[in-house]
Amino acid sequence: MAPLENDLFLRALLRQPTPRTPLWMMRQAGRYLPEYRATRAKAGSFMQLCMTPDYACEVTLQPLARYRLDAAILFSDILTIPHALGLGLEFEAGEGPKLDRPVRTPADIDRLPTLDPERELRYVMDAVRTIRRELGGRVPLIGFAGSPWTVATYCVEGGSSKAFARIKSMLYGAPQELHRLLAHLTRATTDYLNAQIRAGAQAVMVFDTWGGALAPAAYREFSLRYMADICAGLIREQDGRQVPVILFTKGGGQWLGELAATGADALGVDWTTDLASARAAVGGRVALQGNLDPSVLYAPPAAIRAEVAKVLASYGTGPGHVFNLGHGIHPDVPPEHAGAMVDAVHELSPAYHR
Amino acid sequence: MAPLENDLFLRALLRQPTPRTPLWMMRQAGRYLPEYRATRAKAGSFMQLCMTPDYACEVTLQPLARYRLDAAILFSDILTIPHALGLGLEFEAGEGPKLDRPVRTPADIDRLPTLDPERELRYVMDAVRTIRRELGGRVPLIGFAGSPWTVATYCVEGGSSKAFARIKSMLYGAPQELHRLLAHLTRATTDYLNAQIRAGAQAVMVFDTWGGALAPAAYREFSLRYMADICAGLIREQDGRQVPVILFTKGGGQWLGELAATGADALGVDWTTDLASARAAVGGRVALQGNLDPSVLYAPPAAIRAEVAKVLASYGTGPGHVFNLGHGIHPDVPPEHAGAMVDAVHELSPAYHR
Repeated sequence: MAPLENDLFLRALLRQPTPRTPLWMMRQAGRYLPEYRATRAKAGSFMQLCMTPDYACEVTLQPLARYRLDAAILFSDILTIPHALGLGLEFEAGEGPKLDRPVRTPADIDRLPTLDPERELRYVMDAVRTIRRELGGRVPLIGFAGSPWTVATYCVEGGSSKAFARIKSMLYGAPQELHRLLAHLTRATTDYLNAQIRAGAQAVMVFDTWGGALAPAAYREFSLRYMADICAGLIREQDGRQVPVILFTKGGGQWLGELAATGADALGVDWTTDLASARAAVGGRVALQGNLDPSVLYAPPAAIRAEVAKVLASYGTGPGHVFNLGHGIHPDVPPEHAGAMVDAVHELSPAYHR
Repeated sequence: MAPLENDLFLRALLRQPTPRTPLWMMRQAGRYLPEYRATRAKAGSFMQLCMTPDYACEVTLQPLARYRLDAAILFSDILTIPHALGLGLEFEAGEGPKLDRPVRTPADIDRLPTLDPERELRYVMDAVRTIRRELGGRVPLIGFAGSPWTVATYCVEGGSSKAFARIKSMLYGAPQELHRLLAHLTRATTDYLNAQIRAGAQAVMVFDTWGGALAPAAYREFSLRYMADICAGLIREQDGRQVPVILFTKGGGQWLGELAATGADALGVDWTTDLASARAAVGGRVALQGNLDPSVLYAPPAAIRAEVAKVLASYGTGPGHVFNLGHGIHPDVPPEHAGAMVDAVHELSPAYHR
């Protein structure tokens, strides 16, 4: 493997000094880029794009060709695990994901196979290896998975949800069944992330997209706890270098102090929490990643620059900040607006690292 | 007017002692009730239901016939103001609201008429008067409106939104234009709520459904501030009795301390914040209303009862709590599950008021 040229991202996650604030964008390889849409059209379907390592590599690298970013993130989806568990994942055009065989009964949980990520998710590891080779050490590669709770919502509901009727009925009415499902997903997710690390992922992130839909006690019992279990089970060093772990609960601003106690190295923060108060809540235990409102990128470049300045000022001086959006970039954002954000971070952040 | 028989709700909002915790349900007059669906079918459309005082009264009273609730809430919609401002509101089946003439340019804002609620929203005041008469003093009647920010999202986006692309582009790129729109809506909303109070509303609530989509600084500047202006402009006493004001920002758990400083009497709290920590945040300045996760009502009655007990215990002893859901009841909840919640509050709450 080529030696790593730019390790700002990894250093910031470990709260080590850097000359400026590193940055990447959640969903940086995505529909807002015309070159992504072209590759997606070649691939035929979203799942074919994920499952073909050369295509996954191609779209992973596209944003790096446009913008001065400090990390690449594996192009994949949080639903690769339910897909590999045989739940029958389909992405219908304009509809979001559907699972033909949702998990709703104790027997459905009993029937879940033990996942061997090197076999059923081999295509992901092949993508990781291909991307690492093609990156040639320019920037580190982030691997990822959904949190057990978030993935469970899709497994039980059979797709996206707003009210989470079925899984919350299980959570409140049959909590031991839900715990069995979550324990299964936690083991599969830990194995999956460790396989990504062995294949070459240099940091990993757990996306808890729907943890914020839970009441605090339910969040602790059904989401936070399983993310802590994942942290405890991950390979934390590979090729002589620490592999940082980032946890991100969208809507979890009230629980950052508890998230900081999971053993993670860094926490994602969405845009509804000031980084200054987030920093106070975590008390130097973890780095923070975030948190520009992704909808700021609809505004003109001068306004984007002003809002980037506010995020940097909110975190303040010293190490431990990775600049990012507070959630994934929206598909209808003009690519040059993302560029205005990237440029502003490069220009304005060194002042916070002197 | 008949004297008020049950004033527990009003007393709790003013933090006065009550023998038990009063309760009502957000969206208690709604689709989960078969009798509501029958009246809605008679009315023909959702807007006809809102605009026909006898129908609005009929559905307002339906939940009181089924459950031992301590307040009625006017049946109406937060989009009556954009409708009255001539923005062309339509509710398409299964689609949510659409506004044919959204507000997107400075000229669109200039063109907004000054609202005379006694004229353009006369049907709402007629509904309030009809409901008060039919209630016969059994329980108090709550009037309501959307927050200026929340209503503005519909005015600018032309309907429901997830990313709020247009209004956030305005917020960050042309903030003075958005302030002009919000100031206009604030005046209209204040006049509208005062008209409801004059017609007989005994408490009023401002629903800031989309305040939680804002970054903290934007929330303060574009939502919180205008709700404080409304509080300052409202009639606070009518017929010798205080008219309490409730503010509710969904997703606003991090801002309860600031909301408590607006001059409101009570704050709605969604289910993602513990009432114990909410109570600590507001420091006795306001009452709290909430906060059972509405999806708990999908679970069996025994689980519902256990979760009601946790909400009551989280608030703890003493006055100042109105039990409610943390957001509107879901349309597919079995009505008897709502009944299990109501019964549990009646049975379990007296222990907290001794």
